[in-house]
Amino acid sequence: MKINTWFGVIELGNDGKLLASEIYPKNVRELALRSLSLRDSRQNLPPEGFDLAAVAIDYGFVDSLSEYYSLLHKVTLETVKLQVSEALTPDQRIVQAVEALDDINETTNSLSERLFEWYGGYFPESGLNGESLAYFVAKYGSRENIPPDDPLYLKARDSMGAKLETADESLLKGFAESVCSLYDRRKQIEAYIEDSMASLAPNLTMLAGPMLGARLISVAGSLEKLAAFPSSTIQVIGANKALFKHLRSRAPSPKHGIIYSHPLINTSPWWVRGKVARALAAKLSLAARIDFYSAKKDPSLTGELEEKIRKIREANPRPPQKRQEVRVKPKKKRRK
Amino acid sequence: MKINTWFGVIELGNDGKLLASEIYPKNVRELALRSLSLRDSRQNLPPEGFDLAAVAIDYGFVDSLSEYYSLLHKVTLETVKLQVSEALTPDQRIVQAVEALDDINETTNSLSERLFEWYGGYFPESGLNGESLAYFVAKYGSRENIPPDDPLYLKARDSMGAKLETADESLLKGFAESVCSLYDRRKQIEAYIEDSMASLAPNLTMLAGPMLGARLISVAGSLEKLAAFPSSTIQVIGANKALFKHLRSRAPSPKHGIIYSHPLINTSPWWVRGKVARALAAKLSLAARIDFYSAKKDPSLTGELEEKIRKIREANPRPPQKRQEVRVKPKKKRRK
Repeated sequence: MKINTWFGVIELGNDGKLLASEIYPKNVRELALRSLSLRDSRQNLPPEGFDLAAVAIDYGFVDSLSEYYSLLHKVTLETVKLQVSEALTPDQRIVQAVEALDDINETTNSLSERLFEWYGGYFPESGLNGESLAYFVAKYGSRENIPPDDPLYLKARDSMGAKLETADESLLKGFAESVCSLYDRRKQIEAYIEDSMASLAPNLTMLAGPMLGARLISVAGSLEKLAAFPSSTIQVIGANKALFKHLRSRAPSPKHGIIYSHPLINTSPWWVRGKVARALAAKLSLAARIDFYSAKKDPSLTGELEEKIRKIREANPRPPQKRQEVRVKPKKKRRK
Repeated sequence: MKINTWFGVIELGNDGKLLASEIYPKNVRELALRSLSLRDSRQNLPPEGFDLAAVAIDYGFVDSLSEYYSLLHKVTLETVKLQVSEALTPDQRIVQAVEALDDINETTNSLSERLFEWYGGYFPESGLNGESLAYFVAKYGSRENIPPDDPLYLKARDSMGAKLETADESLLKGFAESVCSLYDRRKQIEAYIEDSMASLAPNLTMLAGPMLGARLISVAGSLEKLAAFPSSTIQVIGANKALFKHLRSRAPSPKHGIIYSHPLINTSPWWVRGKVARALAAKLSLAARIDFYSAKKDPSLTGELEEKIRKIREANPRPPQKRQEVRVKPKKKRRK
């Protein structure tokens, strides 16, 4: 009978006597790796009450009980560390990136608005805002520095804005540079998400695009969880408020959550959006499952989805005309 | 009789005949500056119904009525521009800086927390957060880059954090750099406020410190408004919620608003804080008025304030013991 232990493999005779054994070298990291694979396989574990420490001393793996426990302590600690490292799977890294992107978007917007208001006192006619304003201010500072070949030169010359003092100019320029740095960061994180999504979830990326796909994984918590969701859940992910209102009261069920940002939905006429969302969610759910279990790209998904949506649109060329009837019915009931 | 007009000075005889005149050159900017000073002085304005246009043509200032009105249009436009420029007074610039600082503080905190959570997966033992973490990540990136002479070297070597891939490392480093840029901006804006406050409101700065002084101006809207506030308002600026609760119901009146951050108040024992706040607000109000109307520094204010507060503390060495009595009195009234 073979027994796998954390320090080696032991051969045990039927009478309980030790026959042979293979003792591993005393390398903490290797022992930790072996115990992780032991945990996964769960094969030939020692029977209950088996005195591992005594065997370890018998075979000369350790000299004393205290050495045995001190080494076991180190190995289990290392095992935990390895497990922690493994917790940062690629999809968890994407989730982190999506959350960071959301934070950056929010802060960039609020700082951009501040810059718009602040710089507005000095050059209200610029007509710039957001990213273009930030790059403009970081580049020129005062409107007096705009060269004559710039399209804004004339506006800047005749501007009714105040004169920008040197101290204020360096302040505003610095502020704009920070805002630019955040805009750059946003692009970097978006590029990272696009790259990671293409390798982690090629099918989801193909159908939903990298950003929407990453957002779905982020809301679900992980690709595994997303793959386990029914497609009806994927359809309303992100519409929590409307969903719970529907479940609590007579409010209509939400037709779509964050998948609304998908072009197939938001370019559809309103009366087919619910149907399109259902078809899209079904394919997204399928894509997430293929991604999680095989990670092979299946180009046929796109064609199937497009065909399905073409059919939906063809079957519903005009908005439904039943609104009038629906309104009349309850009135009749009340009159009875 | 002398008449000041926007295009020149006219001498008018008692019989209404023109005697002599001084016509200004046709320079739009100069004419605008003159009409601004005319607006301020309001002396020798033309009588009602006086036909300025005819006089302007008579004296050869313009050739036709249409030229007169087109020039007048240009000059008034330029005047408005000059007035807009003047609206950005030094205290308005400080208000802008304080608001930008508040925005920066908020965004920096939220991005710092994100960085802490994000980097925590890779080096949870660092024990750093906020600014020091941002500079650490921007400098080293992965914990593998920490040199052996760094105090965190050992922790980094034995860390249970995950291995930082190259793509994630450049992402995290970039993010940390953006956060550092915001921290730098914060320092720059604080330095700007300190500089500007020292010249704009030396007395307020002397008593309240530059940041609290700037915040008081910011909440009031301008130095002029702050100077017009009674000291009781200055005492509770920023405690709006508590103040209105007090005015609506039987809640106690707030003892202090944003001036609570002043060391004289927050280092005082709780039972004299209200008195100290009143004394401080009185001196701050005085300081704001001196700053607005003369801008000369009056070093005696500090001494007076300190003397006053010393007296308050001496007169109230122990917390009041009257709580019991106060509670009993209203009960007696109800029993009557």
